[in-house]
Amino acid sequence: MTITQHGHEQKKLNKLYAEFDTMGLIPLWTIRDNLMPMSPRPQALPHLWRWADVLPLAERSGKLVPAGRGCTRRAIALSNPGLPGLPYATPTLWAAVHYLAPRETAPAHRHSQTAFRFVVEGESVWTNVDGDAVAMRRGDLLLAPSWTYHEHHNATDRPMIWLDGLDIPLVNGLDADFFEFGLDTLSTCETPERSRGERLWGHPGLRPIGQADRPSSPLTAYRWEHTDAALRAQLEMETEDVPSAVIEPGHAGVRFSNPTTGKDSLVTIRTEMHRLREGTRTAPVKTVGSAVWQVFEGTGVATVGDRRFEISKGDLFVVPSWYELVLEAGGDIDLFRFSDEPVYEALGLADTYRGGA
Amino acid sequence: MTITQHGHEQKKLNKLYAEFDTMGLIPLWTIRDNLMPMSPRPQALPHLWRWADVLPLAERSGKLVPAGRGCTRRAIALSNPGLPGLPYATPTLWAAVHYLAPRETAPAHRHSQTAFRFVVEGESVWTNVDGDAVAMRRGDLLLAPSWTYHEHHNATDRPMIWLDGLDIPLVNGLDADFFEFGLDTLSTCETPERSRGERLWGHPGLRPIGQADRPSSPLTAYRWEHTDAALRAQLEMETEDVPSAVIEPGHAGVRFSNPTTGKDSLVTIRTEMHRLREGTRTAPVKTVGSAVWQVFEGTGVATVGDRRFEISKGDLFVVPSWYELVLEAGGDIDLFRFSDEPVYEALGLADTYRGGA
Amino acid sequence: MTITQHGHEQKKLNKLYAEFDTMGLIPLWTIRDNLMPMSPRPQALPHLWRWADVLPLAERSGKLVPAGRGCTRRAIALSNPGLPGLPYATPTLWAAVHYLAPRETAPAHRHSQTAFRFVVEGESVWTNVDGDAVAMRRGDLLLAPSWTYHEHHNATDRPMIWLDGLDIPLVNGLDADFFEFGLDTLSTCETPERSRGERLWGHPGLRPIGQADRPSSPLTAYRWEHTDAALRAQLEMETEDVPSAVIEPGHAGVRFSNPTTGKDSLVTIRTEMHRLREGTRTAPVKTVGSAVWQVFEGTGVATVGDRRFEISKGDLFVVPSWYELVLEAGGDIDLFRFSDEPVYEALGLADTYRGGA
Amino acid sequence: MTITQHGHEQKKLNKLYAEFDTMGLIPLWTIRDNLMPMSPRPQALPHLWRWADVLPLAERSGKLVPAGRGCTRRAIALSNPGLPGLPYATPTLWAAVHYLAPRETAPAHRHSQTAFRFVVEGESVWTNVDGDAVAMRRGDLLLAPSWTYHEHHNATDRPMIWLDGLDIPLVNGLDADFFEFGLDTLSTCETPERSRGERLWGHPGLRPIGQADRPSSPLTAYRWEHTDAALRAQLEMETEDVPSAVIEPGHAGVRFSNPTTGKDSLVTIRTEMHRLREGTRTAPVKTVGSAVWQVFEGTGVATVGDRRFEISKGDLFVVPSWYELVLEAGGDIDLFRFSDEPVYEALGLADTYRGGA
Repeated sequence: MTITQHGHEQKKLNKLYAEFDTMGLIPLWTIRDNLMPMSPRPQALPHLWRWADVLPLAERSGKLVPAGRGCTRRAIALSNPGLPGLPYATPTLWAAVHYLAPRETAPAHRHSQTAFRFVVEGESVWTNVDGDAVAMRRGDLLLAPSWTYHEHHNATDRPMIWLDGLDIPLVNGLDADFFEFGLDTLSTCETPERSRGERLWGHPGLRPIGQADRPSSPLTAYRWEHTDAALRAQLEMETEDVPSAVIEPGHAGVRFSNPTTGKDSLVTIRTEMHRLREGTRTAPVKTVGSAVWQVFEGTGVATVGDRRFEISKGDLFVVPSWYELVLEAGGDIDLFRFSDEPVYEALGLADTYRGGA
Repeated sequence: MTITQHGHEQKKLNKLYAEFDTMGLIPLWTIRDNLMPMSPRPQALPHLWRWADVLPLAERSGKLVPAGRGCTRRAIALSNPGLPGLPYATPTLWAAVHYLAPRETAPAHRHSQTAFRFVVEGESVWTNVDGDAVAMRRGDLLLAPSWTYHEHHNATDRPMIWLDGLDIPLVNGLDADFFEFGLDTLSTCETPERSRGERLWGHPGLRPIGQADRPSSPLTAYRWEHTDAALRAQLEMETEDVPSAVIEPGHAGVRFSNPTTGKDSLVTIRTEMHRLREGTRTAPVKTVGSAVWQVFEGTGVATVGDRRFEISKGDLFVVPSWYELVLEAGGDIDLFRFSDEPVYEALGLADTYRGGA
Repeated sequence: MTITQHGHEQKKLNKLYAEFDTMGLIPLWTIRDNLMPMSPRPQALPHLWRWADVLPLAERSGKLVPAGRGCTRRAIALSNPGLPGLPYATPTLWAAVHYLAPRETAPAHRHSQTAFRFVVEGESVWTNVDGDAVAMRRGDLLLAPSWTYHEHHNATDRPMIWLDGLDIPLVNGLDADFFEFGLDTLSTCETPERSRGERLWGHPGLRPIGQADRPSSPLTAYRWEHTDAALRAQLEMETEDVPSAVIEPGHAGVRFSNPTTGKDSLVTIRTEMHRLREGTRTAPVKTVGSAVWQVFEGTGVATVGDRRFEISKGDLFVVPSWYELVLEAGGDIDLFRFSDEPVYEALGLADTYRGGA
Repeated sequence: MTITQHGHEQKKLNKLYAEFDTMGLIPLWTIRDNLMPMSPRPQALPHLWRWADVLPLAERSGKLVPAGRGCTRRAIALSNPGLPGLPYATPTLWAAVHYLAPRETAPAHRHSQTAFRFVVEGESVWTNVDGDAVAMRRGDLLLAPSWTYHEHHNATDRPMIWLDGLDIPLVNGLDADFFEFGLDTLSTCETPERSRGERLWGHPGLRPIGQADRPSSPLTAYRWEHTDAALRAQLEMETEDVPSAVIEPGHAGVRFSNPTTGKDSLVTIRTEMHRLREGTRTAPVKTVGSAVWQVFEGTGVATVGDRRFEISKGDLFVVPSWYELVLEAGGDIDLFRFSDEPVYEALGLADTYRGGA
C-alpha cells in the first residue's frame, strides 16, 4: 500500500469512527484491555483508616453538625482512594462511622438496601427494627435487612459510635434503590436487655414452630458473649487435637448466619468474626469480591497486596477483589469482617485461591 | 340372561380369576376399598403407654436380661396394638425405652436408619457419636443421624433410662436398611460436660467458617436449658402482646433444627418440644403422617380421635395419620413430640387441617 | 447357677415377657434380625410377567367384566409373589394392565397418589387430565400427577390396553391416601392430536413466560418420536467418539423430566426409557429401591439376582431393592423403566452400586 | 447566634470537611440524594439503535478493519448515551453487533463472563463451544456460558452479522473478570446441521441419564423452528379460550431455559422471545433491572418512559431500570429480549409493577 493509499484508508477509518460515535456505538477493537482483563483489575485500592483518626472527627461532627442537617443520619463514610469522590469503601460495600449524640434520635426509614451495625465500643443506643428495640453493645452485630423500618435512639447522656455496613454501592450500581420514610416519632422508646428477635430466635438450633423461612436472618442481634464463646471453643478444641475446629492453625472464625436457612445473615452481605492466636500468620488468600475488616481487639499486621498495615483496635481496612491478604497476629487479635461474597456465590462468580505452606 | 347363561358366565369368570391368581395378577375391581380410601385409614391405633407401667418393666429387664443377650441394646419397643406383633409405634416410627445398667456399655454400630435419644429423667450415660462423647441429661435431645457410629457408656453406679426414636419402620418398609458393627471397645471413655458438636455448633446463629452443610444437624445435643428458655420466652412474649410468638394462645413450641440448613434436625424425623400454659386447650388438628408424644413434665388430657388419655410425666402416646388431636393442660405441661412429617413434605404428601374456634 | 435357680430365673423372665405382651411392648433382643438387617432383605421377589400371558387375560376381562362392576377402572395389577395377596408389584409401586373396551369411558376421579400411563401397543384412547384431552399412542408416556382429575375415553371401535403405574403401595403404607370422585360425564370429548399441555410445554428448553414451577411435570405427554430420536442420537454420538453420550457402552437412556425444575417428571416415581444396542451386556448394578421394567420392543435377557428372564415385547419384570440387575440385548432392545428412586433421594436413603468390567 | 459566631462555626466546619477529605472520608449529609433515591434513577437512558444505521457500519468495518486488529473479535458495542464513553448498553449488559467476513475465523478464548448470540438474519457461521460446532441461523439463540471455550468460523463466501449479548458490565463492576486465550487453530472445522448439545439435550422434557445439573444450559442452541412453534401455539390456544396460555391478551412469550434446572438458560442473563398479535398494546410494566430488545420481524412502537420509538426489523432498544415500557404491534411483531433479571432475583432485589387496564 502506498502512503497515499494508506492515508486514504485512514480517512475512511476516521470517518467510520466518527459515525460510530454519532450513532452511539463503540468498536470493541478500540477499547482498552480493562473491559475484559485476564484477572480482576479493581479500581478500588487497599486502604487503612485508623480509628485514632476517625474517632475524633466523628466526635467533632457530633458537636458541629446538628442532627437533621440535610440528612437523617450522622454517618461518615469510608471513601476508597481508588474510587475518588465516591463514598464507597469498595465497589459494592458502604462502610460508615455512625455517631449518635446523647439523647438524640434518628427517625425511621426503610429501603431496599441491606444494613447492619457492628459495635467496637460503647453502648447506650437502641436501634428499633420493625418496632423491636435492640440494644447495641460492644462486640454485637445488629441487623437491619432490606425493607425493615429502622430508627435509633440514644437513651443515655453518653454519645455512641458504631460501624454501619450496607450494600449501597451494589444496589446503586444495579439501579435497584427504593427508599421510604417512616414516622417522625419513635415506634418504641423501650430499652430492653434483649430484643424480641433474640428472645424468639436466639436459642441454638431451636426454631419457633410456625415461623416461615426468611431471606435474611430474623435474629436481630448476635451478642458478643456468644461470638466470643464460639471462637474460644474453636481454639480450645484445636489444642485438644481437633484441627478441623479452626479455619487454619491458630485461626478461628464464625459466620453470622440466618437460622431459617443456614445461609448468610444477610442476602447480599457476609458477616464474620475472626480470632487469631498470638503469633499466627494466615496463609495468603485471594477472593473474588471485596471485604472490609475492622479490628475489634488486639494488634497485628494486615498485608493486602503490597500494602502493609499495622493495625490495632478500631482500625478499618479494605481488601479489593483478588488482592492477596495475609494477617499476622501481634498478641491475640479479633477482627470483624464483612464482604460481598454471597453476591458472587449467587451469580456463579465466586472463586477463592488459598496459598499453601 | 337365563339362569343357565348366568351360571355359564360365572364359570368363565371363576376360571378367569383362577388364572389371574396363577399368573400373579389381581384385578382392581375385586380389591377392598382400603387400597385407595377416601382419606387415610391407618391400621395403627391411638394408644397410651403409661410411664408407671413401662418404667418398672424396663428396670426388671435390666436385672433379668444381661447386656449382650442376643442383642447389643436393651431397648423395649412400643408396639402399636393396630400393628400386632410388630415393634412399631407407628407405620414409620420406632419408639423404645432404653435401659443401661450401672457401668454398662453398649458397643458401637452404625446404620442407614436415623436415631435420636430423649431423656425424661436421669443422667449418667454418655453416648459417643462418631467418637464425640455426649452427656445425656434430663430434657436433652441427642442425635445419632444416619450412618454415624454410636455407642453408649454408663459412667456411674446408677442405671439410666431414656427414649430412643428411630425411623426403623420407614426404612424397613422401603428396603433401605444397612447396618455395620463398629469396634467392641469404646471409641472414647471421656465424660465431658459439653460435646465437641455442641462446642462447635451450639452458639445461636453462629456457624464455624469452613464447615459444609449437612443433611442432618451437626449439633449433637440440644440442651434443656435452651429449650426451656425458648419456650418461656414465647409465653412471656404472648403476655406482652406479641401473639405471633406462640403457635396458638397458651401454646408455645420449638422445633429442633439443623443449623446448616434451618430444616429439621434429622432428615426423616421431626423433633419438637411443646409447652401449654395451665388451662390451655389446643385447637383440634389433623396431620397426614404419624407422631409419638411423651409428657416431659406436668399433667393433662390428650384426645386422639375418640380416645381420651389422662397423661402425666413420662407417658407416651401415639397419634396415627389424620387422627384429630386435642391437648388440654392440667397445670402447665411440657411435651416432647416426634413425627415423620419431613418425609411427607419431601414427597409432596403433607397436609394439615386445623380446626377453628 | 443351679438348675433350680435357672428355672426360677426362667419363670421370672417368662412372667416379664408376658407383661411386655400385655403392655404393648416388644423387647428388641427377642426380635428377628430382619428388623435391622446388614443390607436390604426385601420380601418382594424378582418376577416376570409375560405379555403373552397377561394380554389374553386382559382381553377376556374386557368381555366378561362390564365396566363399572364394583370399580371405575378395569385394571389388573401385578402382584409380587413375595407380597402374597397384595396387588403390589413392589413395596412402593403399583403396576397394572388397563383395558378399555371400544367406545367405553372411565369417569373422572383424582387422588393424592401419582399416576402415569405407558403404551406398549395400540391407540384409540384419550385420557383427559384436568380437562385436557391427551391422545395415547404406542411408545408414549402420559402423566396424571397427584390431585389431577383424570378420566379416559375410547373414541374408536378398537379396544386398547396400556400400563398404569402408580405409587399406591407407598402412599398406602404412609397412610396418605386421599380420593375424590369427579363428574360422571366426561369433561371433554375432544380427540386432538396434541394436548394443550404439549402445545404449551413440548418445545425443547422453552418455557411459557409467566408459568410457575410445579412439583410434577406440566408436560402431559412424552411422545415416542422424541424419545426415539433422543435414544438414537445417543447411540449415534457414541459411534462418533462421544462416549459420554451414553450411560455405558451400547446403552442409551433418557429420563422423563419436569421442564419447570429439571427433576423427575413425577415427585415420587422415576420414569425412563432405555435402549441397548444388539449384543450389549450392561454392567451389574444394585440400587436401593425397586423398579418395574417393561420391554417396549426387541428381545433379550434380564438377570435379577439369580433369576434369569428371557424377555420380549410387553414383558414386565420387577427388580426389588438391592438385587443385582444385568441386561443383555438379543437384537436391539428398548425398555421402559419406572422406579421409586426419587423417594430415596429425597429422604437421603439413595445408594447405587455399579459393578466394574 | 451572632454573625461572628456563625462565621466561627463555619470555619470549624470547613476545617472538619477538609480533614474528612484528607482522611478519605465523606460525610453522608453532604452527599447528593442519588446515593439512596426514593426509586431507581438510572444513568442509562432509553435509546434506539436502528438496524438501518448499524448494519452498514458493521459492513464497512468488515472491509476496513482486518480481523486481528488489536482484538480477536470484530464486534461493535451499543454505548448507552447515559453512560458516555462506556461500551455498555445498560449498567449490566453488553450488546454488540458482530461481523464475520467470508471464510474468516475468530480464535478461541474463554472467560468468566457469560455470552450468547442471537441471529436476526443470515447464516454461514458455526460457533464452536467447547469443541462442539453449532450452526447459527436466523432466529436461533446460541449460548456460550461462563468459562466455555468459544471460537467462530465462517464456512462460506458470505459475511454474517449477529447480536452478541454478555454480562461484561456486571462482571466488570464486580471485579470478577477472568480471561484465557485458547488455541489459535480451530478446535473443529465441522459444519453439522445440529450440534452435539442439541442432539443430547434438544428433546422436549427428556434428559440423558447420568448427566449432572449445570448452572447454565447444556442446550447449545435454541432453534427458531421450536421458538416459532411455541409462540404460535400460545396464540392459537388463546383463540381457543385458554387465556392462561399467553402473558396477556395478544401477547405470547417464551423464556429460553436450562433443562437441568428449569431456570434461566444463563445464570446472569434472561433470554426471551415475544410475539404480539397485530394491534396488541401491552399493559405498561416497570421492572427493576434493565433489558435490551431487538425486533426480529415486523413493525410497531415501543414507548420507554417518555420516549417513543418506531421500530422495525433488527432495531435495538434499551429499557433502563424502572422505566415504564409499552409495546404496540403494527402488524404481527416478534421481539427478542435479554435482561439481567436473574441477578436481581438471586439477590432479593427483583420487583415488577404491571399497570392495569
